[in-house]
Amino acid sequence: MSRTDWSGIPEYLEQVASKGKDIVWCVAGAGHGGVSMAGHLGVMGFRVQMYNRTDEHLEAIRWYKGIDVEGAVEGFGPVRLASSNMGEAIEGADVVMIVTPSTAHYGMALAMAPFLKDGQIVVLNPGRTGGALEFRAVLQREGCTARAVIVEAQTFLYASRMIKRNRGHIFRIKNSVPVAALPSFLTPAVLKVLDVAFPQFSAGSNVLATSLENIGAVFHPALTLLNAAWIESTGGDFEYYLQGISPSVARILQNIDDERLALARALGIRTVSAREWLYLTYDAIGDDLCSAIRATSSYAGIKAPPTVNHRYIWEDVPMSLVPMASMGELYGVPTPAIDLTIDLANMMHETDYRRTGRTVETLGIQGMSVEDLHRLVTEG
Amino acid sequence: MSRTDWSGIPEYLEQVASKGKDIVWCVAGAGHGGVSMAGHLGVMGFRVQMYNRTDEHLEAIRWYKGIDVEGAVEGFGPVRLASSNMGEAIEGADVVMIVTPSTAHYGMALAMAPFLKDGQIVVLNPGRTGGALEFRAVLQREGCTARAVIVEAQTFLYASRMIKRNRGHIFRIKNSVPVAALPSFLTPAVLKVLDVAFPQFSAGSNVLATSLENIGAVFHPALTLLNAAWIESTGGDFEYYLQGISPSVARILQNIDDERLALARALGIRTVSAREWLYLTYDAIGDDLCSAIRATSSYAGIKAPPTVNHRYIWEDVPMSLVPMASMGELYGVPTPAIDLTIDLANMMHETDYRRTGRTVETLGIQGMSVEDLHRLVTEG
Repeated sequence: MSRTDWSGIPEYLEQVASKGKDIVWCVAGAGHGGVSMAGHLGVMGFRVQMYNRTDEHLEAIRWYKGIDVEGAVEGFGPVRLASSNMGEAIEGADVVMIVTPSTAHYGMALAMAPFLKDGQIVVLNPGRTGGALEFRAVLQREGCTARAVIVEAQTFLYASRMIKRNRGHIFRIKNSVPVAALPSFLTPAVLKVLDVAFPQFSAGSNVLATSLENIGAVFHPALTLLNAAWIESTGGDFEYYLQGISPSVARILQNIDDERLALARALGIRTVSAREWLYLTYDAIGDDLCSAIRATSSYAGIKAPPTVNHRYIWEDVPMSLVPMASMGELYGVPTPAIDLTIDLANMMHETDYRRTGRTVETLGIQGMSVEDLHRLVTEG
Repeated sequence: MSRTDWSGIPEYLEQVASKGKDIVWCVAGAGHGGVSMAGHLGVMGFRVQMYNRTDEHLEAIRWYKGIDVEGAVEGFGPVRLASSNMGEAIEGADVVMIVTPSTAHYGMALAMAPFLKDGQIVVLNPGRTGGALEFRAVLQREGCTARAVIVEAQTFLYASRMIKRNRGHIFRIKNSVPVAALPSFLTPAVLKVLDVAFPQFSAGSNVLATSLENIGAVFHPALTLLNAAWIESTGGDFEYYLQGISPSVARILQNIDDERLALARALGIRTVSAREWLYLTYDAIGDDLCSAIRATSSYAGIKAPPTVNHRYIWEDVPMSLVPMASMGELYGVPTPAIDLTIDLANMMHETDYRRTGRTVETLGIQGMSVEDLHRLVTEG
């Protein structure tokens, strides 16, 4: 494995951070998340460019020369360029914020490979599991030699909705979202740049940690699949967490969580259990996962998705559970509950998420020892 | 494999049939089914004995010297003996009707082994999957040399409830229930005896057919498991079949059914698909299983079970799905949907139904070729 020589990059990132409001951001993805983030950056006075694969989705923003934001942030955010031409869209951008389902990361990496420059920061918001590793592997395969810094956010910064193509509603901005750079020794330098706009970002250990702290992978796919009939027969009209997670369903989620924790342990990553996470995030306490969920008042009123053809399945299964199962196989951690959830999704959706999902092969870590893997995520 | 010499048994069964109302029946099991069947036999004027493992459950019947029946049949059915002593209970019985969950068959076989006599008929009502083979294997292992005829009913004759320990309510008597003797060449002779009381019984091909025509195995466990949260959060207050079987859940059931049919095909057994069964039984037509279910007006108003700790799981998984998976493995028929359902049940119930369930080993057919198996079920 050839190591990248990162010399000069930390100093370069220091310079970028010092540009302040002149930092140029490209937001890639003009959906629920991207519109809100681009608008917010514009409202804060940053220079904003946008990319979207489908050009028509950008027309309103182009015509309006910006995005209106409402909710937790209010105002007009100018967007100086909105393009479906990747080279044009990321030209001159100090930071590229990718705000798409993780199923689009592969295509984004392919499209960016010819244009990335040394020191450009690419943040996956969020990476799900293995996002940064997959992104890096695609760039390498495409012969990209630019020393771009791939960064993984552990979750998405906002709860937001796109109201119109040029209007976003931000319901809530999270207090703290861990991010990690690949390589992780660059995380502090990257954070200095991101912090100019987003003080909410904090340092994650490395991209394995942000990948394995993926709590959505524990809650969402099994919860959706095991409530498929309830969802399909009522259009999702029930309390998704409070009713959908009953004692029997919670036992499956607990098994999935135990396997995630075992995988993290095998990789030497410290991460919290789903039950601890409920306590840390929502002050919810319970003797078991089901009680802890039912003690989470923030979940009251959250209905189930209206259909099982939802990103909780078509994103979280291939982009979160499949890579966990694949890493479990490589590192000798059995993942029966995760496997069962993948099998159930495959059977219900009549597809093969193992074939389309992230594996140690597509993450470029096939055959790597734990030590090699740590060196990779730490030193690049 | 030593063959049993059945000479004289057909003639003996002819004699039993000719006894008419003097035929002696032992009903083993004093629950919802057994109380109704014993009462019904008494009302019809037959000589009735009863067995139950727990003696206290028989006290009311003993004191009352019989059972009141209501519903599709009305009257008082005398019971001349009710005992928890197996030797006493089956003494002199021409037919022993076992009316218990199939999880009790093993214990029944153990208890009966020392007492069975040549020509006694033992009917499993119903056998689920592999009931007769398991019963035979237990008797052999216990050194029972009596040439008792084990018979498997494909389903239970009644829809019934026990109102009190000595009062049963029969909602409905099915028009036709296939039964098969082990060996199947004795089925006609057995039917002559059974028909004296129950003209509803018809000839099934053999005990492999009654075992694999187990439609409950297709519908019940996966349906219950995939609606676990809905059941646990509402106490089962929804339309079990009409809402619980949505398109996604139906795809899993269809896979289970396809595997059952493939297994039947591999064994040379002709059986109908679940969709054909809905048409034959309820005149329900649909392009796929979900539509066919939703066209089944007889399912309207049937609520889900109030808990997932239900025989649809603890009986149907080990006694129906596990033997199908095990036979699939022996005869090279993959059973991924059945396996997934077993795994899900194991995980939700924190148990191992593969260990407690029926397998080719406990059915005594381990390593048998399809030809050997057919010879066994046909000739004994």
